Amino acid sequence: MRFIDLIDKKKHGGEHTKEEINFIINSLMSGMAEDYQVSAWLMAVYFKGMTLQETAYLTEEIIKSGEIIDLSPICPNGEHVMDKHSTGGVGDKITLILIPLLASLGVPIAKLSGRGLGHTGGTIDKLESIPGFNANLEIEELIEKVKNVGLAIGAQTKRLTPADGRLYALRDVTATVDSIPLIASSVVSKKIASGADYVILDVKYGSGAFLKTAEEASELAKWMVDIAEKLGKKFHALITSMEQPLGRAVGNAIEVIESVEFLKGNMTADIKELTYEMASLALTSLGKAQNKDEAYAKIDEAINSGKALEFFRDLIKSQGGNPQVVDNYRFFAQPNYAFQIKAPQNGFIWNIDAYKTAYACKILGAGRERKHDQIDYSAGIYLNKICGEQIAEGEVIATLYANDADKIETAQKYLIEAFSFSYEQRDRGSLIYKII
Amino acid sequence: MRFIDLIDKKKHGGEHTKEEINFIINSLMSGMAEDYQVSAWLMAVYFKGMTLQETAYLTEEIIKSGEIIDLSPICPNGEHVMDKHSTGGVGDKITLILIPLLASLGVPIAKLSGRGLGHTGGTIDKLESIPGFNANLEIEELIEKVKNVGLAIGAQTKRLTPADGRLYALRDVTATVDSIPLIASSVVSKKIASGADYVILDVKYGSGAFLKTAEEASELAKWMVDIAEKLGKKFHALITSMEQPLGRAVGNAIEVIESVEFLKGNMTADIKELTYEMASLALTSLGKAQNKDEAYAKIDEAINSGKALEFFRDLIKSQGGNPQVVDNYRFFAQPNYAFQIKAPQNGFIWNIDAYKTAYACKILGAGRERKHDQIDYSAGIYLNKICGEQIAEGEVIATLYANDADKIETAQKYLIEAFSFSYEQRDRGSLIYKII
Repeated sequence: MRFIDLIDKKKHGGEHTKEEINFIINSLMSGMAEDYQVSAWLMAVYFKGMTLQETAYLTEEIIKSGEIIDLSPICPNGEHVMDKHSTGGVGDKITLILIPLLASLGVPIAKLSGRGLGHTGGTIDKLESIPGFNANLEIEELIEKVKNVGLAIGAQTKRLTPADGRLYALRDVTATVDSIPLIASSVVSKKIASGADYVILDVKYGSGAFLKTAEEASELAKWMVDIAEKLGKKFHALITSMEQPLGRAVGNAIEVIESVEFLKGNMTADIKELTYEMASLALTSLGKAQNKDEAYAKIDEAINSGKALEFFRDLIKSQGGNPQVVDNYRFFAQPNYAFQIKAPQNGFIWNIDAYKTAYACKILGAGRERKHDQIDYSAGIYLNKICGEQIAEGEVIATLYANDADKIETAQKYLIEAFSFSYEQRDRGSLIYKII
Repeated sequence: MRFIDLIDKKKHGGEHTKEEINFIINSLMSGMAEDYQVSAWLMAVYFKGMTLQETAYLTEEIIKSGEIIDLSPICPNGEHVMDKHSTGGVGDKITLILIPLLASLGVPIAKLSGRGLGHTGGTIDKLESIPGFNANLEIEELIEKVKNVGLAIGAQTKRLTPADGRLYALRDVTATVDSIPLIASSVVSKKIASGADYVILDVKYGSGAFLKTAEEASELAKWMVDIAEKLGKKFHALITSMEQPLGRAVGNAIEVIESVEFLKGNMTADIKELTYEMASLALTSLGKAQNKDEAYAKIDEAINSGKALEFFRDLIKSQGGNPQVVDNYRFFAQPNYAFQIKAPQNGFIWNIDAYKTAYACKILGAGRERKHDQIDYSAGIYLNKICGEQIAEGEVIATLYANDADKIETAQKYLIEAFSFSYEQRDRGSLIYKII
C-alpha cells in the first residue's frame, strides 16, 4: 500500500477499507507518511467526505494509536462509566456543576478534560484558578480519588489518542478543521479512549460556537452518536444554542464562583435548563431514576440539601485545592482593576453576542492563543444584566476584571458592542434545539 | 496575509488576486509556508480549480521565481524566438527531427529540454546516447553555439522556474499532478522563462500519454494557449493521438537513429505528418513561408538536399558528440542481446498499444524511475511492423534490445501483449485531432 494511492482514492471519492484507514494512521504515527501527504489527504477528505463506516474505522484507529483507560475499577458492579463533553461555548461551566451534582447522586465520575485554546479557558483551566488545585493526575491516582470521594478530574494526557493530536495539529494549519467526519472521529475517539461507555454531548451552535447553525450542529451530533453506536457505546447529544453566553460569568475563577453559586441554589434559567436536562438524562440512562420527574426531584434535593456542593468541596480538597474558596471568594486571586459598563437607556437586554463577549474576555487575558500562553485566572467578565432582564439608564450591566488597565480600556469597547437593547422584554425560550 | 487564509479561500472556491498568488509563491520559495500547507492548497486547487486570470498570475510568479533567459542575441532583427514542447509520448522523437530541419530553413533555435522521468528517456537523454554529446551548457555557451551553427540544445537548468520544481515535487507525492491550471502554468512558465515567445505545443492523448482523451488534451491545450496570450506570447497547440508509438523505434540511441533515417528521407507516415505540420506552422508563423504549400516544398527541399541532416551533424559536432554516428550507427553503444518477436498469424497489424510498449521498454532499461537512475542508451524496441502493415505468420514484427537476457525475457511478454492483429487492413487516419 502507498500513501499517495490512498490520497488519490479519496480524491476520487473512494471509500477507504479498514486496512487502508489502519495504514493511514500507522503511517502518520510512524512518520512513514510525510505531513504534506497527510494534509493533502485531509483536504481530499474535506471535499469528498467519509462514510459513517469509514469514520468509525478512523475513530477506532485513533483510539488504538494510544493508551485506552480502563475505568471498570470505579464501577465494580459493571455499571456504565459516564462522561460529558461540550463542543465549546462562552461561559460554559456546565461540567463544573454537573460532575459534583451527579457524583452526589451516586454516579461515580473520573473525568479527563482539556485545557482551553480559545477565548476563555477550558474546564481544567477554570479548576486551576482554585489555589492549589492539581489536575495533573496519573490514571491510577484518578481512579483512587474516585474510589475515595466519588469524583476526580484530570487533564487529558498525551498518551491518549496521540494520532488525534497529530491530525489536529495539521488540520489547524491547513484549513481542514471544519470537516464533520474529522471532528466527529476526534471527539468520539477521545471520549472512548478515556474509558467512557456512556457520554452526553453538548453540541453548540451560534455566534459563540464553532458551528453556526442548529442544522450543522445536529448533523455533527448525529454522526458522533452513530459512530459511537458502531463502536458499541451509548452517546446522547443535546443540540444547544450558543448565541449568548451561558449564565453571567465568563472567564476562569469567575466561572467557578458562578458554579458554586449554582450549587448553592442561585441559578440563571439558562444554566438550570441545561444542567437539569443533562443530569436527568444521565440519571435515567444509568438507572438512577425511573423517569424525568424523579430525576428532577433528586437533582433539586441534591442542591437544596447542600450535598452537591459538599461533593464539589470534596473534589477540591481531594485534588490539593483550597476548599475555603467555596465559602469565601476572596481566596481566589483578585484582579487589580474592575470597570463597570452602564446601560445607555431604559428598557431590556435584547441580546448579548457570545462571540463579542468572548473576544473581549480574551483581551482581558482570560484565554490563550498559543499552547504555552499564560492565563490570567482572575480576568473575566460579569454580566450584571442578561437577556430579558430590565435595565434603567445608568445602571451597571457588565463588569470587566483584569490586571491591566489598558486591557480593560480595549476590552470594554468590544464588550459594549456585544449588547443590544430593546423596549420590549424578550423571552429567550429553550436553549435546547433537539436531543439525539 | 496568512497562508492558511489563502488555503481557506481556495477551499471555498475564491479567486486569488495577483498579490495573493505572489504571496503563495514567495512563501513557498522563502520557506515561510510549510510543505503541508502548500500541499493542502494544491489539493484545494485540484477541487476548486483556478480561473484563467489566476493561472496567468501563477505562471508569471513561477517565471519570476528564477532566471529568465534573454534569447534576443540570437534574433538580432527582432524575430520571434521559437520553441517546441511535447507533453510526452512513446517513441516521440519529433524534437530531434524538427530542430535541425527548422534550423536548416533559417529558424535559429536555442532549446532547453528535459531529461525524462518515465518509461523512456527525454530529448536530452536521447541526444546523450550519442558518444561525447554534451548537453550541460551554460546559457552563454548555448547562445554562442546558435550564433555559430544555427542551433543548440541544452539541459534545463534549475535556475529557471525553481518554484515549478518545488510545486511539482509536492504535487508528485500528494496526488495533485492532474490539475489543468497546475499543469498549464508549469509548462507555459518553463517555456517563457526559457526565452521563447513563439511555441508549438504537442499535446498528446491516448494510451501512451498522460491525458487519456482528445477532449482533455484540447482543454489543457486551450488553457496553455490562452495563458500564453495573457502573458503576451503566441503559442500554437496540436492535439495529437498517442494510442500507438510514434514511428518504429522506442528507446534512446534507437530513436536518434530513426530521426537520422527520417532526415535521410526514410519516413513513417505518422512522424512525417506531425513533423511537416509543425514545421509548416512554424515557418508560416515566423514569416519564413507564405503558406502551407510553400512551407511543405521548403521542408521537402531541406530533407532531399541533405541540408537538414547536415544541420543535425553540425549540432552533434558543436556539442562535442561524434558526428560519425549519422553515417555509421555502429558508433552508438551496442546492446549485448537482441530478441525477435514473430507474427503468430497472417494478416495485418491492427494496433500496438503505446503504454504496453513503453512499459516493456522500461523493463529493458531505457527509462528511469527515480531521478538518479542510469539509463541504458542501447536498450530499446524496434517495431519491424507497425499499424496497417501486412504480416505473414513467423515474420519478425518487433525486436527487443538490452544488455541483460533476463530483462528481455520479461519485456517480451509485455510487448507481445501490446500487439493486436486483424485480417483487414486498418487505415490509421490522421494523428492530428485539432490545432489551436
